[in-house]
Amino acid sequence: MSETISISSATLISSKTIVGSDVFSPTDEKLGTIEDILVDKVSGRTIYAVLSFGGFLGMGERHHPLPWSTLAYDVVKNVYRVNLDKKHLEDAPSYDRNKEFSWTPEYGRTVDSYYKSPNYWN
Amino acid sequence: MSETISISSATLISSKTIVGSDVFSPTDEKLGTIEDILVDKVSGRTIYAVLSFGGFLGMGERHHPLPWSTLAYDVVKNVYRVNLDKKHLEDAPSYDRNKEFSWTPEYGRTVDSYYKSPNYWN
Repeated sequence: MSETISISSATLISSKTIVGSDVFSPTDEKLGTIEDILVDKVSGRTIYAVLSFGGFLGMGERHHPLPWSTLAYDVVKNVYRVNLDKKHLEDAPSYDRNKEFSWTPEYGRTVDSYYKSPNYWN
Repeated sequence: MSETISISSATLISSKTIVGSDVFSPTDEKLGTIEDILVDKVSGRTIYAVLSFGGFLGMGERHHPLPWSTLAYDVVKNVYRVNLDKKHLEDAPSYDRNKEFSWTPEYGRTVDSYYKSPNYWN
């Protein structure tokens, strides 16, 4: 785990680097941290980023799955941004990070619908 | 990190679960372990899985990037498989996991070409 790989291409990122990355608003306010990404097993496409909000919303114990399509990569500053306000994130579907959580297609549809994202689940 | 999320849908997998997964041959021989995945920053598409071969090839200290398209997900046994023989994997592009490695587009093209995979780099 002490591995250091620098990827000089601007296009690839290690999943271990994505996890732990901060997410910012368009106005450079830190909104949260990516705790995990959920990937389609077969296609390898990232479907959700799982965010935590480090306490500033008083909800650091909850995980908020965001459709990947809500994240934009800022190639200038090398950070991910979401164009969502705090209140919208606060009211979004979430689950207790410390409890077992069963992700169902129905839950996925609720998340996709909340963010008005393309429905992954059909 | 003590988080336990069970995803009951058969389609999604956490990046933290992919990392550490074993990779098998079509005849159920364990070939290696996924150490990391490299993701396109913008699209979220997984481009490479980085494999290690735990010593059985005498090369546990090296990382072998494989184009994601070489991996097939076995939905019955819930494992990833590659249809490649040991010799082919042994001779593949790799780098020392303990040294800093700069991934360049040229290196990526070499990898894609070795596995006759679609060229990510153009």
